[in-house]
Amino acid sequence: MSAPRAATATAVAPATVSNVACGFDVLGFAVADVGDRVTATVTSRPGVTITRIDGAGSNVTLDARANTAGVAAATLLEGSGIKDRGLELVIEKGVAPGSGLGSSAASAVAAAVAANAVLGLDLPLPRLLTFALEGERIASGGVLHGDNVTPCLYGGFVAVRSLDPLDIVTIPVPDGLCCALVRPHIEIKTSESRALLGNAISLSAAVVQWANVAGLVAGLFSSDWGLISRSLVDVVAEPVRGHQVPAFREMKQAALDAGALGCSLSGSGPTVFALCRGAESAERVASAMQNALSSVAGIAGDRYVSSVGGKGARLVESASAS
Amino acid sequence: MSAPRAATATAVAPATVSNVACGFDVLGFAVADVGDRVTATVTSRPGVTITRIDGAGSNVTLDARANTAGVAAATLLEGSGIKDRGLELVIEKGVAPGSGLGSSAASAVAAAVAANAVLGLDLPLPRLLTFALEGERIASGGVLHGDNVTPCLYGGFVAVRSLDPLDIVTIPVPDGLCCALVRPHIEIKTSESRALLGNAISLSAAVVQWANVAGLVAGLFSSDWGLISRSLVDVVAEPVRGHQVPAFREMKQAALDAGALGCSLSGSGPTVFALCRGAESAERVASAMQNALSSVAGIAGDRYVSSVGGKGARLVESASAS
Repeated sequence: MSAPRAATATAVAPATVSNVACGFDVLGFAVADVGDRVTATVTSRPGVTITRIDGAGSNVTLDARANTAGVAAATLLEGSGIKDRGLELVIEKGVAPGSGLGSSAASAVAAAVAANAVLGLDLPLPRLLTFALEGERIASGGVLHGDNVTPCLYGGFVAVRSLDPLDIVTIPVPDGLCCALVRPHIEIKTSESRALLGNAISLSAAVVQWANVAGLVAGLFSSDWGLISRSLVDVVAEPVRGHQVPAFREMKQAALDAGALGCSLSGSGPTVFALCRGAESAERVASAMQNALSSVAGIAGDRYVSSVGGKGARLVESASAS
Repeated sequence: MSAPRAATATAVAPATVSNVACGFDVLGFAVADVGDRVTATVTSRPGVTITRIDGAGSNVTLDARANTAGVAAATLLEGSGIKDRGLELVIEKGVAPGSGLGSSAASAVAAAVAANAVLGLDLPLPRLLTFALEGERIASGGVLHGDNVTPCLYGGFVAVRSLDPLDIVTIPVPDGLCCALVRPHIEIKTSESRALLGNAISLSAAVVQWANVAGLVAGLFSSDWGLISRSLVDVVAEPVRGHQVPAFREMKQAALDAGALGCSLSGSGPTVFALCRGAESAERVASAMQNALSSVAGIAGDRYVSSVGGKGARLVESASAS
């Protein structure tokens, strides 16, 4: 057995918008310029330790068994049969926890990508996805859903047709499709928000939802802006979860009035996303949503404007110190 | 007021496969070479009379108020404000009633198209669709669903994103996409079959269904045969309705063993459809299904092989006798 080499690798993984109105637990896309960064260092002590969390994650646990990055890295070690070495992680949160922007997914994915590199494993994306999903699972009340982790790792706009067996579909998006995001300064736990939905829905609502999924996917493939716009409707989660977000109704109306194609909750919220035709439109829409949040609810919110379907997670630094 | 002119018009409207596995009430496509034919003649007596029903429709009612063609024609007269003239219809059923091939839709659509022509109204397709839907409604226990009527009228492979307001999406299909159909010689009433489904489904099943809708639409757009195949799964209606069709399980297995991309019930059954890559494959699959039906259930069945997404309804004859 070779002696362990001290080595380090840093990966970034983007924020993601999941559900995308009609595609609950199925559709998601990567957001540019916002993400988590995880640095992994190989240690001679087996297991995973989180040594520091910086940035937006001041209230995220350092307990590696309860942290999505920690669980993803530990599952990767275990799944790869590595028992004689361990990992130390430093996490820099760019995605605010409880924001609905796939914060837990971003940490899990960045950890998996960094761990893969630092251990020299060269695992394929589907394997990394499995490990990141295990990390994400602890943040979702045990429910496995891939609509954050998958676009976070793969990038782009994706449909998760199936997690077992894994079947990921990349959906092309029209040039100029942008999103406006406003994140109110409140936090919603995915696991609690999920419990609100219950276990059953009416058949008629389900039919409306998959009709809109058909419309949205067709609209994205055919660059039919009108169809994309008409299909961005959520009759399943938004009617329940929208009430949790202060001034959601007014933010949505402001977005539509400002020219958004459609507007709904990002994941379980509280971040509100709007799809827009072009970056200028997205800037106007983001301002309108931010103003509505501030004037109606008296709450401040961060705003982001991004292309839809940016890059997935990637290695940014790798060093060997042996 | 001008005196009514004796005139006649004949329209044909194709059989259709609705649901298409994952797209309950939303997806459907037109079948080539099988359809209903309706001849409409203008009369001086207001209202609609059905003078004869030929072909596969020996047990279809001549009562125009209870017949889908009669209701479609009557709604068209009423919707167009025509009170001084009426229509006589002769129906030639090519689509067997209760077969799951959109028999009621084909009659309703052919009647609307023939009535439109004979009255010289030149109504646009969305208006004709409205009238045909009203005809179809009486065959579906009052439920309005457009996944037979729409592909029957428009042709092609369609997604009905919304009926109100009307939003029809045409989905391109890959060259060579064919279907094999086997119609067991038994009858199932759509209205009864619909009642079996109940009013609610589990959220987890609904998510699986719209994940498959996303996959199927993406697969059709991108000519990804593997994705089309993996997406042809119905976890909502088929598990309930499949039991109504003798030897359904064996027919499906035979279809898949013979190389079908996927197989499920056409509409509410009993016709079983399989999508196939190429006409030769569809021929083999149709034989395999027919054999399974015969050997397992001892029931004979008609077989059809067709391209997917053929022509919609059209006028075939028009004559003025004034």
